[in-house]
Amino acid sequence: MNPKIEKLIKQFAKLPRVGGRAAQRIVLSLLQDKTGRAIALASSLADAAASIKPCPICGCLTEKHCEFCNDMSRDNGQLCIIRDLGDVWTLEKSGIFRGRYHVIGGLLSGISGMTPEDLNISNLSSRIKNEKITEIIFALPNTVEGKTTQHYIMSVIGDVVMFSELASGVPLGGDLDYIDDGTLSIAFGERKKI
Amino acid sequence: MNPKIEKLIKQFAKLPRVGGRAAQRIVLSLLQDKTGRAIALASSLADAAASIKPCPICGCLTEKHCEFCNDMSRDNGQLCIIRDLGDVWTLEKSGIFRGRYHVIGGLLSGISGMTPEDLNISNLSSRIKNEKITEIIFALPNTVEGKTTQHYIMSVIGDVVMFSELASGVPLGGDLDYIDDGTLSIAFGERKKI
Repeated sequence: MNPKIEKLIKQFAKLPRVGGRAAQRIVLSLLQDKTGRAIALASSLADAAASIKPCPICGCLTEKHCEFCNDMSRDNGQLCIIRDLGDVWTLEKSGIFRGRYHVIGGLLSGISGMTPEDLNISNLSSRIKNEKITEIIFALPNTVEGKTTQHYIMSVIGDVVMFSELASGVPLGGDLDYIDDGTLSIAFGERKKI
Repeated sequence: MNPKIEKLIKQFAKLPRVGGRAAQRIVLSLLQDKTGRAIALASSLADAAASIKPCPICGCLTEKHCEFCNDMSRDNGQLCIIRDLGDVWTLEKSGIFRGRYHVIGGLLSGISGMTPEDLNISNLSSRIKNEKITEIIFALPNTVEGKTTQHYIMSVIGDVVMFSELASGVPLGGDLDYIDDGTLSIAFGERKKI
């Protein structure tokens, strides 16, 4: 195989959710495309990689001015703690939350080796003061790692603000057959009177 | 979402075997990477797209000199008809075939609208003469479209060369439980004495 093609396939194969065979198909389709998609993709990627950086305040990826931190309509006193930018995009698509975000960049975990020093939380206390935050909403994954990280952050910040977390329970459309015992137990324990 | 990020996600989502959510993860991992993977990928892609073209003889992707057509050790009189370059790579990895390739670029199909004019076969007859081809091996998919395409190409070339096709049957490790009736019927019909 041509070394340039081989190198390109190896680079694509390292991307998340892309394996070796998918990388081959991708490279094949890009290099055989006659509409210039390969060049267009290369140039958008180089452009974005050069101009887009994490916001020093909230950790979201941004050009010069962060769209969240500079949006005064989001200055409502709510700060949502989020694992990564993908989760921010998910929330933004739903349009549910209209406050500010704080991306911590991962969860504490012995397995992945993520420690408190790796979390992007050093400026959290100053944000609470500067932005007059009244409520911190934890929108972390509902897992052991998510809860551990949440409790760690709460202990670091201390008792200066209201904390909340997302409700646990049976998801909409969720069939009880497919729901794990832990969720079922929480859903029973926190059942609502109707 | 930042427009540059949005554009990049859309471009990745159009690649084969990459959907919207995978494209998000890919863009996120590239833009958050601190080792310069995004820039490296962009530059390899631009480089390959600019320098790699289909070989005018065999249809494989190549730089100036096709690694197959210019390899004299492959000048053994065998020409393997292949649907696309991905299948060439599969065969090359196996190391089974040591002759020349001819990539036809697709299969005749009413559904995909592929017609005889779309097949890269116009120079097949001249290749047979120039390269003293003695055997044409069809390594096309074992499907209705593959067989239709094979018979069409045989009728165009005419009776000037030996034709062969890959054997049909139960694959190695194939459990009869999981094999379709058509394959089973062929495997019985072409059973070998032991």
